[in-house]
This record gives sequence, structure tokens and C-alpha cells, in this order.
Amino acid sequence: MADTASPIAMPDQATGSPEASETPSEGLGLDGVVISVDAMGGDRGPAPVVAGLAKSAAKNPEIAFIVHGDKVEIDRLVARRKILKGRVVVRNAEAVVQMSDKPSQVMRSGKNTSMWSAIDSVRNGEASVCVSCGNTGALMALSMVRLRKAPGVNRPAIACLWPSRNQGGFNVMLDVGADIRADAQDLLQYALMGASYARNGLGLKNPRVGLLNVGTEEHKGRAELKAAHDLIADTAPQANYDFVGFVEGGDIPSDRVDVIVTDGYTGNIALKTAEGTAALIREFLTNAFKKTPLSRIAALLAYTSLRRLGKRIDPRRVNGGVFLGLNGTVVKSHGSADATGVSAAIKLAFELAKTGFTERLAARVASTAVPRESADATSEKKSSE
Amino acid sequence: MADTASPIAMPDQATGSPEASETPSEGLGLDGVVISVDAMGGDRGPAPVVAGLAKSAAKNPEIAFIVHGDKVEIDRLVARRKILKGRVVVRNAEAVVQMSDKPSQVMRSGKNTSMWSAIDSVRNGEASVCVSCGNTGALMALSMVRLRKAPGVNRPAIACLWPSRNQGGFNVMLDVGADIRADAQDLLQYALMGASYARNGLGLKNPRVGLLNVGTEEHKGRAELKAAHDLIADTAPQANYDFVGFVEGGDIPSDRVDVIVTDGYTGNIALKTAEGTAALIREFLTNAFKKTPLSRIAALLAYTSLRRLGKRIDPRRVNGGVFLGLNGTVVKSHGSADATGVSAAIKLAFELAKTGFTERLAARVASTAVPRESADATSEKKSSE
Repeated sequence: MADTASPIAMPDQATGSPEASETPSEGLGLDGVVISVDAMGGDRGPAPVVAGLAKSAAKNPEIAFIVHGDKVEIDRLVARRKILKGRVVVRNAEAVVQMSDKPSQVMRSGKNTSMWSAIDSVRNGEASVCVSCGNTGALMALSMVRLRKAPGVNRPAIACLWPSRNQGGFNVMLDVGADIRADAQDLLQYALMGASYARNGLGLKNPRVGLLNVGTEEHKGRAELKAAHDLIADTAPQANYDFVGFVEGGDIPSDRVDVIVTDGYTGNIALKTAEGTAALIREFLTNAFKKTPLSRIAALLAYTSLRRLGKRIDPRRVNGGVFLGLNGTVVKSHGSADATGVSAAIKLAFELAKTGFTERLAARVASTAVPRESADATSEKKSSE
Repeated sequence: MADTASPIAMPDQATGSPEASETPSEGLGLDGVVISVDAMGGDRGPAPVVAGLAKSAAKNPEIAFIVHGDKVEIDRLVARRKILKGRVVVRNAEAVVQMSDKPSQVMRSGKNTSMWSAIDSVRNGEASVCVSCGNTGALMALSMVRLRKAPGVNRPAIACLWPSRNQGGFNVMLDVGADIRADAQDLLQYALMGASYARNGLGLKNPRVGLLNVGTEEHKGRAELKAAHDLIADTAPQANYDFVGFVEGGDIPSDRVDVIVTDGYTGNIALKTAEGTAALIREFLTNAFKKTPLSRIAALLAYTSLRRLGKRIDPRRVNGGVFLGLNGTVVKSHGSADATGVSAAIKLAFELAKTGFTERLAARVASTAVPRESADATSEKKSSE
């Protein structure tokens, strides 16, 4: 099988830690936890982004923002929201990364974009976390170049929260689209990163980790999955997670597991399939309640019940894919996010900033990392058996 | 990457058409379309299977059955249902394929099982289609050995119906789990088989075919997917389908596409993820309506609306994965199917039998099949570009 370029074009030279940059992290006049926000990349422009910031600011007195993009427009939008007064610094960026831009283009010529500028605020220490609604591939590519991969990490991953039956109401799944393939060693790193995320983001001491496959029997599936199964099982005791073995698509929202590990191709398809299914059912439900006069009355009576359900399955409320494995945390919000969606992504960014997530994750991966060469030897041995 | 054994163990020698067998197709005393049914393989034993047959028989006067399994018990169950009188022939089979049995075991020593016997009724022409609730891997392995692959087919596939927004209410997706991998040429065959299924099973003259990927842009995804994209596009004019290009997980239930083509690993995970999501939402919905006295009253008023919704998202009503690419049609029903689920699978089997689906499909694939060697050369050329 030919080893193709990732859709996100991972540059090999991007390993190591970023050098300190010229911009100082002081003198911004902002108090609290500072989040860097790319205001321009989403499908709906900066208005819903600024509305989302206002929503978050109203709920959380500890939060402040550096907002990157068209300064004239953003200043105008910010001025309309009293709650944002004194809590926003606006940085002008002339260009915007388009949804159709290729990551490789953006890496070469994206220096003047709001996305680049937003990531650089994390790189130079002004902000703890970066949030963008922009082009996922470009955001990952720029994050890799500007923040670089954390020591011991080969492929960074995107982790999402998934509504589930377990106590906290969410599972973590990764990779949901950073890269289209992952070998056994990459899947082990996803397990470590996902467990660390569950520990810091969901407050679980000993997260249960499962590896996504087409069956739970150990003899099923592709060779790299069998090799990953053994690696993740062997690493469990030293890394403080419980390995539950293979899980199936139906187990993703179950209370059998807290962290679901898979490659970015499969994870992306599973995530979008679930979102599509939820949207379809929501449509069916709306139509069912519009059908007859009686059902319209029922819908009125059931208003709060339906609203409660709507909240639980609303993808805006679990908005925010977290990029793991970089020297800095980046949260990708949905391109079509409205104020509620942006606010959910900001909340997630804030929580990760508060727990010092990036530093803890780096320490965790570095301490359990198997040297790449010996891991490759292991997985080759397994697949030739 | 090591080429591992499929979980379903595809025997290479199983290409070609089955020889005529000793059992004659006459003298059964059955009228109409005869369906061969494995009564034993499901999680709940033969009772829900026979109940499902009765349900189908009551709705459809043209249908009759050969039922395979424990004759004493099946006779007893059949005797209780008047509607089945004179419409069922029972064949005794001493053994039952267990859900935990490995396909390779069953292929070697499964001669006395109800599953083997049920497939052989299609092989020897007594019945048009075989239905089983048993172990999917074993069912595919036995079907391959006993029915053999249709001319021009390299990997058979399992196709499922997927609730969708398009006119007929369903899309077709394949492969959902016959094999864990597929190359570009296999994916082309899936497109041909899926289009044929949509034509015969859903009555669509020019089905729209899409290839599942992580994005709709042509530069995205794995090398084999790009090669498959070009092969499927090139074959569209001669094979009477419209190729809509890459589709994403969220497009599966959309009205953009009628047939979704993917490898069995990805398709299986997407299918189970969607089922899991629907089940989760159904639970949330039930709980939402139990929360308060008012919502309980609302649930009563909304009873018919909720029932209508329940019907649309009830996986039992789309029960039945169809094995494509064999000399004979096999329908796999859910292992946990109840009478409603079994009856849905029987209905699907009946419709495929009526249209002479197997013969049409074979003719279609054979007439558009690219010789294997030249196809391999094409895909190698593409992936090295």
C-alpha cells in the first residue's frame, strides 16, 4: 500500500519545542485566563464568534481574550457588548484562511492570516489556549509548524467529546481527523493522550480505554489493530488507565469505556455518521410533532421535555475538537458554530487552560513513550506472525 | 502493511459456480416464492423466527418456507400457527452454529448445522433466498464455500438499508462487514453491486453512487480511495449509475446519494455507530418524557407521533444485510431479531427473490467487470503518481 500524504500535510521538520518569540506576554492589560481566538475562519464570519465570547464572558469572570482578525469589524462588534469591555485585545490580521484552502498553501503563505496570528499568541505565551472555527486541515498544519509536536509524539490527534451513558455524560474519542492513518505505536500514543485528556478534562482518575474495531473478539480486525491491542494492554499498568480491549461502533456512547482510540479516518467517519444520525432523528422528531393538531398540542405540553432532549443531543454543546500532542492546546470549533457553539468551545478551552493540561500531557507521554525504533520492531514482529 | 486474513476467512478456491446438487427442487408441495430459513442461529432460538414467519405469511399469500433446525421443536412452534399450515417444510439439522464459533471451524465441520442446510437449499435450487439470524462471519464463509463467488467478483460484500431523507426513505450502504479491507477494484465492484441492489430492491433506475471519505475534496483521503474514485467515475456511463464523488459520514442519511460505497471495516463501524446513536437518543427521549407529570401527559397525547417516529428509526424495520456477489442471495438478520425483525428480513428476501435479483446482478457485474490484472495495473499506476 502506498504511503500517501496526509490530508493535513504533517511536516517532518516540525518536531521539537518552539523557540521563544519576540512578543512579550505582559502588558496586555488582561486579567485571568487568556484565550486566543481566531475570529475570522468560520462559515459565518466574526459576528457569532464575538457573540460567543460575550456569552462566555457573562458566565465566567475569570476569562479574557486576544481576538485576531479584521480589527475594524471586530472592534465594532466588541464595542456593542458591554460585558467584553476591558477583557478583549484585538490584533489585526489582513488575511483569512478559507475553508477550501489547502493546508500546504496556508503553511507557505499564511503568515498574515488570523489563524496564524491566533496560534502565535499561544506560541509566545500570551494565551494558554487557541480557539478557531476555521479550516481543520490548515489549523492542524499551522499548529504543527508553529507549536511543534510534543516530545515523544509522532502523530498529533484531534479528540472530541461524545455524549454517552456514563456518569459524566461524555466519552472522549480520538483521532477524529488529524491524520488518515495510524500505526500501532500511534494508537498507543492516542491512548496515552486520550487518557490524559479524560483525567484533566473529565476528572476521571483511571479512565477506561477501548480500541475501536469491528468486533470485540481478539482475533478480529487488521494486523495493526492487533499489535496496538497488545501495546496498549502492556502499557496500562504504568500509565494509569484500564484497558477494556476492543470496542465496537455501538459501544462508543456506552458506559463500558471513557476513551475510544481509533485512526483519524475511521474516527472522522464515525463522528460525522453519528452527527448525521442525530440530525436525521431531530428532523423526524420535529416532523412527527407537526403532523396532526393533537400532536402539535402534545408538542406544546412536552416543550420542556423536548428541550431537555434537544440539549442533550445538541452538537453545539459538545463543540470543540482538541488538538493533542502539540506544545500548546488548540481547540477547533465547528465551522458553522453559532454563539452557543463558540461559547462551548471557549468553555472547554478555559477548562483545559486551568488544569495546565498541555504540560501534564507532555509529561505523561514523555514518561511512557516507547522509543520509536523498538516500537516499530515490535509491531513488525507482530504483523509478520 | 501485512495482508492479514479476513475475519471471515475467504477461501480462494471458492470462485466459480456451484455444481448442481442431489436434492431436487420439486416435490416439496410448496406454492409461491420459497425462502430458506435457518431457524437456530439467533440469540433467542427458533421461537421468534417462527413467529416472524407467521407474521410474513399473514401479510403475503405468495410466500412459503423451508425451515432448518431442530425438527421436533420447530414442528411444535409451526403447529401453533394456523397461517403456516401447508406453507412450511421443516428440515432437521442436529447442530447449531454458535455466535462465538470461528468461521474457519464452521467451514470445516459445520455440515450438520442448520446454517449449512439453509444455504444448501439455495444452492440446490429449492429456495430462492436464504435468511439466517446467525453468526455473520460463519454465514459469509459458508455462503462463499457453498454458493461460490459470482463471476468477476473478488470480494463479496454485505449491503444494508439505511434510513435517509431521500424519496424512498432508504439508502444502500456496502460493505458493512463482509471483509475488513477493499482495494480500488473491490470498491468498483461494490459500486456495481450496490447500484444493482438499489435498482432491484429500491426501484431506482439511475442510482446515485458515492464513495465514503473524510472529505468531499478530491485531494483528500487514502491512495486506494483516490484510485477507486477514478475507476468508479470512469465506469459510470456504461453501468447506468451517477457518480456523485466522495461523500462524508454526515451524507449517509442525505438525499445526495442512494448507494454509499466503503470497505467493510469502515462500513461496519459507521453502521454500528449510527445504531448506537439512535439507541442512545431513543433512551434520552424516553427519559425526557418520564421526567415530570406534565411530560407524562404530553407523552400520552403525543403517543401516535412518537410511535410514528419510533417506527422510522426502529432498526428492526430495516433488518437484513444482503450478501452480494455470490451465486445466490443470502439475507443476514440481526442476531437479536424478534418477530418484527425476522419478518422485515423475510420481506426483503421475498422482494429480492421476486425481481430475480441474483441473476440480474451477476449479469451486470460480469458485463462491466474489468479483468483483475489490468485493474491492478491501473490502481498501481494511480497510487504511484
